Amino acid sequence: MSKKKGTRAERELLHLFWDNGFAVTRTAGSGSITIPSCDLLAGKNGKTLAVECKFIKNSIYIKEERINELREFSEKFGAEPWFGIKVMNKGWFFLPLDKVEKSKGSNYIISHDIAKRKGVNFDNLILDLEK
Amino acid sequence: MSKKKGTRAERELLHLFWDNGFAVTRTAGSGSITIPSCDLLAGKNGKTLAVECKFIKNSIYIKEERINELREFSEKFGAEPWFGIKVMNKGWFFLPLDKVEKSKGSNYIISHDIAKRKGVNFDNLILDLEK
Repeated sequence: MSKKKGTRAERELLHLFWDNGFAVTRTAGSGSITIPSCDLLAGKNGKTLAVECKFIKNSIYIKEERINELREFSEKFGAEPWFGIKVMNKGWFFLPLDKVEKSKGSNYIISHDIAKRKGVNFDNLILDLEK
Repeated sequence: MSKKKGTRAERELLHLFWDNGFAVTRTAGSGSITIPSCDLLAGKNGKTLAVECKFIKNSIYIKEERINELREFSEKFGAEPWFGIKVMNKGWFFLPLDKVEKSKGSNYIISHDIAKRKGVNFDNLILDLEK
């Protein structure tokens, strides 16, 4: 996927959170800066979601290092680590960091199938937070 | 002040937070997007600071609208609203949103003098959070 489409997906999710009563920011240069980070930070009712966005067609490999950075960032911030996965023509799925599956070597994998089996949709993501 | 110098100041503050054990992000397009936002979000020990950065020589006027946006964002997010003010050749001062002074009309003002009288330095800002 192109960087441009990734950015467009991030902006779409930004507005989805905002329209549902969250305060939300998109991180500048989250893919390039040297300190652990995430793509979006969304907060509501004292809870914070640290969301890493992926726009995929079928699947994507994620380096262990990136997983560790998201975990470190979230623990320090006091946020819940999530992957926000936009699957082409299928919409958004949300997967908690600990449900991302190990793949070959030290890589991790996110696929449409994994997102469908283990993830939740946006409505269920935010419903969970209202509890 | 130029936009470039403002961005440099934001990055400097980003690293200052990180070096002191905070997870921190800088917001993409915080000055241009249409939803309330802040320049930096810094979290530690379950507390979140929503920081609007200003790099000034002497003083700067801030529109009431901007003040209201920072307040709205922070309330929704569950963050403390702060101004991080870098005064040229004088370093950083931190002023809680409610200590920014009213100026002419509906504007607000931040000056070196106000920052010195009512603000805290970085060490005291983070000391306050450890309590």
